[in-house]
Amino acid sequence: QTMNFHSLIATKATRISGLATHQERKVMEFGTRRAQGESAGNDGAYAAVLGGCIGTANCLAEMRYGPEVKAVGTIAHSFIEFFPDELSAFRAFAETYPENVSLLLDTYSVFDSGLPNLITIDDELIKKYPNDPNKRVKSARVDSGDLARSYKRLRKALDKAGKPYIKLVASNSLDEKKIRSMEIYEDAHFDSYGVGENLITSATDPVFGGVYKLVAVKESEGSYAPKMKCSDSASKAIIPGKLMAWRVYDENGQGQCDIISMDDEVVEEGKPIVVYDFSPDAFHKRREIIPLKVEKLLIPYIENGELVYKLPSISEKRAYIKDQLENKVWESELRFEMPHEHYVDLTEKVYKTRENLYSELHGGTL
Amino acid sequence: QTMNFHSLIATKATRISGLATHQERKVMEFGTRRAQGESAGNDGAYAAVLGGCIGTANCLAEMRYGPEVKAVGTIAHSFIEFFPDELSAFRAFAETYPENVSLLLDTYSVFDSGLPNLITIDDELIKKYPNDPNKRVKSARVDSGDLARSYKRLRKALDKAGKPYIKLVASNSLDEKKIRSMEIYEDAHFDSYGVGENLITSATDPVFGGVYKLVAVKESEGSYAPKMKCSDSASKAIIPGKLMAWRVYDENGQGQCDIISMDDEVVEEGKPIVVYDFSPDAFHKRREIIPLKVEKLLIPYIENGELVYKLPSISEKRAYIKDQLENKVWESELRFEMPHEHYVDLTEKVYKTRENLYSELHGGTL
Repeated sequence: QTMNFHSLIATKATRISGLATHQERKVMEFGTRRAQGESAGNDGAYAAVLGGCIGTANCLAEMRYGPEVKAVGTIAHSFIEFFPDELSAFRAFAETYPENVSLLLDTYSVFDSGLPNLITIDDELIKKYPNDPNKRVKSARVDSGDLARSYKRLRKALDKAGKPYIKLVASNSLDEKKIRSMEIYEDAHFDSYGVGENLITSATDPVFGGVYKLVAVKESEGSYAPKMKCSDSASKAIIPGKLMAWRVYDENGQGQCDIISMDDEVVEEGKPIVVYDFSPDAFHKRREIIPLKVEKLLIPYIENGELVYKLPSISEKRAYIKDQLENKVWESELRFEMPHEHYVDLTEKVYKTRENLYSELHGGTL
Repeated sequence: QTMNFHSLIATKATRISGLATHQERKVMEFGTRRAQGESAGNDGAYAAVLGGCIGTANCLAEMRYGPEVKAVGTIAHSFIEFFPDELSAFRAFAETYPENVSLLLDTYSVFDSGLPNLITIDDELIKKYPNDPNKRVKSARVDSGDLARSYKRLRKALDKAGKPYIKLVASNSLDEKKIRSMEIYEDAHFDSYGVGENLITSATDPVFGGVYKLVAVKESEGSYAPKMKCSDSASKAIIPGKLMAWRVYDENGQGQCDIISMDDEVVEEGKPIVVYDFSPDAFHKRREIIPLKVEKLLIPYIENGELVYKLPSISEKRAYIKDQLENKVWESELRFEMPHEHYVDLTEKVYKTRENLYSELHGGTL
């Protein structure tokens, strides 16, 4: 498991699954074949589920991570091609898995072949199992053509045929923007989506730039001497010292800013504190705030070589991410275009340490 | 090992290392921490070496793939920060590895600290080993600031100090376009480059879309029935049949086009053949060509469960890729902007099979 890649895919998944924008939709992870290598395919499926996907087409991921990373999907084009004709393929599938009939409509032609065969198979199931409404076609996928227009024609035709229970699934190079565009501009809301390469590689932003840096060195007498890399680019100059990070919450329980302090400083609720905005674009560089509610962000996982933290289950991780995005983050930080950048502040002690060390090591001020 | 990811990174590496544009430069793979997971970091380093990189900063990759995937690099900022000052860090390194002194100049300030300390250390080495020119500072890296301007100032200063043998290395979010821009517009030619995230994720194009599809099914009597997926998007309609691919070479020995035939067809040198251009944008759809030189592209690796092909060494693979790009490919296919798309033709038999099957399964013509 890696910090950067897992965070990257889980984050991208929250955007595609709509978790990040408070518009949840059902998304299946479909990208194994286009993942950046073996571990990316398996771990990426897991990370996608953390970020709100309902499952993955990667069966190995379920074998590895257990039933919370559920193997899901529809049938493949190759399965249908293997049969003499599409109807025989649909029928063979329905006879074998009558309670899990999920078909694929575009192997030959969505409206001239896929749709009529789908209706035939569902009618056959009704005839064979008249009293078992669970043995019906559950869903049908479209993987080419104009998805939004196909959705509307299919929905209308299926409703007219008395089959409103058949769900519609879309796939084909989808991502959060394409899905939203269909939903917003054409009111085409598929029941679920299969998303491949654009999720498993986070194609719009394939690099997650988390780094660790040397910020302090333990002296022989036990204290920590702050250390700094200055660089010839101010944005690469690090924050020196043995640090602690705090999150400050507003009256709605949403994160208002983070404060980076020295490890021996305490940020207290209700007590005024002077902070320095870390953003180069800050409007008020120095200001005093009174934190309403404060949470320590750095938690020890390992102490003296022993795990001291109860690791959460996959469901707990999913629930945590969902809660963060639904309740703990400003909406303005979640919008896709020009989001508000989370405020990150330094305590006076950290700010001064950084300024002094920079002046001493590099010369001048930051 | 995967087809898509390895091809992706090897291809991107040929662009950054200049192999793909006949302007070779020394590039080190520096991206492990930003790779998409564990296997991407290790396999990506290997693929980068196939594509012309001289080595990788990932030591595990050398341990795994052997000395042809050479571990290389300079020292880290954290190494320098760990010491009381930069000069002590440089000196400790030079004393430990006097024959491999490669320093890093921008921890504190390239020109106020890194450069003078570099000169001091090299002078100390000269004094200590006057008759051993191998014990000198070999190179120095810059990782921030304006790289092209720093290059010129550093080169001038080092030459003036009588140290033209000290090579200069650049890193900091580089890719083939940034490197070329420095070389072309500013005549700043670093001796080598460390390239991280933009190589190991192929950030400009993180998806390599190789797929396999069911194209034929073996009948009980032994022949193969062509199979086709049509889709509602012409670009997704596959080429049906048990196929063979051929490359046709021009009078310069460069690949002129590929021909896709049925498995039982033979494309002969000197014999006229009618082909159909597969591109939707083809100027002449149908034409007759006389192949000068022909090569079969599909080679059996496994027969009856046994490996029947002598797998090449890493050096042989590197040499093969280099030879392909230097001698076997049209220059017009290698340019970055609007490259010529390799001609792919179908034999009449394949073309007609595809048209007929499409008309039968989907209706209409492609």
